[in-house]
Amino acid sequence: MAQIIAVSPGLYRIPLPTVLSDSTHGEIRAFELVTCRVRDADGAEGVGYTFTVGRNGGAAYATLAQEFGELAVGHDADRIEWLWQQLWWATHYGGRGGPTVLALSAFDMALWDLKGKRLGQPLWQLLGGHDNKVSCYAGGIDLDLSVDALLAQTAGNLEKGFRAIKMKVGRANLAEDVERVRAMRAFLGDGFPLMADANMKWTQDQAIRAARAFQPYDLTWLEEPIVPDDMAGHARVAREGGVPIAAGENLRTLWDFRHLIASGGASWPEPDVTNCGGITPFMKICHLAEAFNLPVTSHGAHDVTVHLLAACPNGQFLEAHGFGLERYIEEPMRIEAGLAIAPDRPGHGIAFDWAALAKLD
Amino acid sequence: MAQIIAVSPGLYRIPLPTVLSDSTHGEIRAFELVTCRVRDADGAEGVGYTFTVGRNGGAAYATLAQEFGELAVGHDADRIEWLWQQLWWATHYGGRGGPTVLALSAFDMALWDLKGKRLGQPLWQLLGGHDNKVSCYAGGIDLDLSVDALLAQTAGNLEKGFRAIKMKVGRANLAEDVERVRAMRAFLGDGFPLMADANMKWTQDQAIRAARAFQPYDLTWLEEPIVPDDMAGHARVAREGGVPIAAGENLRTLWDFRHLIASGGASWPEPDVTNCGGITPFMKICHLAEAFNLPVTSHGAHDVTVHLLAACPNGQFLEAHGFGLERYIEEPMRIEAGLAIAPDRPGHGIAFDWAALAKLD
Repeated sequence: MAQIIAVSPGLYRIPLPTVLSDSTHGEIRAFELVTCRVRDADGAEGVGYTFTVGRNGGAAYATLAQEFGELAVGHDADRIEWLWQQLWWATHYGGRGGPTVLALSAFDMALWDLKGKRLGQPLWQLLGGHDNKVSCYAGGIDLDLSVDALLAQTAGNLEKGFRAIKMKVGRANLAEDVERVRAMRAFLGDGFPLMADANMKWTQDQAIRAARAFQPYDLTWLEEPIVPDDMAGHARVAREGGVPIAAGENLRTLWDFRHLIASGGASWPEPDVTNCGGITPFMKICHLAEAFNLPVTSHGAHDVTVHLLAACPNGQFLEAHGFGLERYIEEPMRIEAGLAIAPDRPGHGIAFDWAALAKLD
Repeated sequence: MAQIIAVSPGLYRIPLPTVLSDSTHGEIRAFELVTCRVRDADGAEGVGYTFTVGRNGGAAYATLAQEFGELAVGHDADRIEWLWQQLWWATHYGGRGGPTVLALSAFDMALWDLKGKRLGQPLWQLLGGHDNKVSCYAGGIDLDLSVDALLAQTAGNLEKGFRAIKMKVGRANLAEDVERVRAMRAFLGDGFPLMADANMKWTQDQAIRAARAFQPYDLTWLEEPIVPDDMAGHARVAREGGVPIAAGENLRTLWDFRHLIASGGASWPEPDVTNCGGITPFMKICHLAEAFNLPVTSHGAHDVTVHLLAACPNGQFLEAHGFGLERYIEEPMRIEAGLAIAPDRPGHGIAFDWAALAKLD
């Protein structure tokens, strides 16, 4: 038994190297990193984290600090499914979504990291062991860039080894979006995987109009065309727009993904391990997608998520975008010829630079 | 313009007069009250609140204290829909469910209270003005009571003027539940409105088996037979069980109710104004139910909710159950011949005893 003796949360506000923007969140100047360290009686430690785009990290921190520690200490860290259920139901009335699921994601990630470390196995093997190399794309947050700046950023991403790229759409006029997508396709050439992300900007009809306008440019997917709550709307956009739809970064439960997938609303389910409830539900979402004959992609936290997509047979197109978190991680993820490499270090293999983080408090 | 100058949250842990129990939450020894006071530049103040069954109130408090004040101060308190959208989207990534919606519920309630006070009108009139008398039931939390104690509690509720009663089901053996329901029906007589609440205890098949076993006892509704996430499961239980289904206290958005109602999963939508996002979405849920030719009932916070069901034509069976909160409210709700009376005081008309609450800190 790996008895839990401490659950130690942290909350850090990390300024971004450059201000980012998308169609929904406006300018993002900093992100919040919420960490969770779980220590067992043998002295082993697992580390998990979640993040926000700048607000409400304090609520996730409060749940970790005030509830999860008290609930988890004394129990067996190896019984992850059991612990997940305990925390889910203990906070169900005042939880079940929102920052509580972000907190649960960080805690669950720490438990899996701890298990991997105790067993001496990297997560991608522990969770299934399909292939340590995963196709990967550069996730640009670039809605405000001029076309020239967008292409310059893209040239930089090609130099970094990326062989797939995602851009933002959702500008004030659809014509501007179409021109940007056209320019990107011309620059990248036919067949190069190109995705576009609308960050929930549109109505159903606007999304269908946009998807149809993008059809000549062969998008791998159009992401989050509408608000995440409207499952029937996703199905309509997918059907009438004629472009594959990706969605999931704003869904918070396995059940949400079941609704989205079963309704035909997305052919690229896109969970985020830091906000879908952790590694435990993320893997279930991968397997749910497989059962529906769909690939699974990802949002955020690529250093951990590379393991999860490498574990299963249907993992494709890891999103590589970390808000500059790599400045606080000892060995950031490697990308070779467009493929992200899951490390062979035990657990997820991420070691935070706690001293550098402490200076941000 | 009613410019907001302060948003003041409070968090209180309120011990229960007696320990409560249901099939999912186990023993409940205390509840958490999270309050929100919004003051405008003219010195008027609106009051809102939310609660939990004992955990995670700290996360809702954190959102009010760290986010909503900063976001709302300086804006016009009368633009409630606009403010609601600002807070929803500002905290969307790290919110959209869970305790953030509880916080938003308290804030939105305070805005409506403030508006009612400024206009000198009670909420039930301001929001529609259908009928200030609303049918009402006593919500018992009584799963652990013996049959004798259950009937004694019921006799007390009849003496208090209740003309409809809800009991808990979900004991270890269905036969025990059936015996308790049978005893209650025999005690109350034919035609007396009797409801039963399973608090998400069962699988789909268990719920169908239970509903069929309860059919001879003419339940007005069977509440929360399964987990709230399983919309298709609700529809199956409603169809195959043959007893009207109530659900909604664990849904957190208007969209959730649209999914539940449109799927045929509940004929008694049951929002809770303290966790569905506040009065603004609660009224939309009432109107959504009306559009589907359904009544709307309620969960929790009866002192405020009586106004909301009194405002609309389809409001029925207000749940009267307040966790002993009436000890901290100056003029608790009146019940006459089974009808709850919406007060004619401006706003919701609830004045907390802040001095008594302060002693709980």
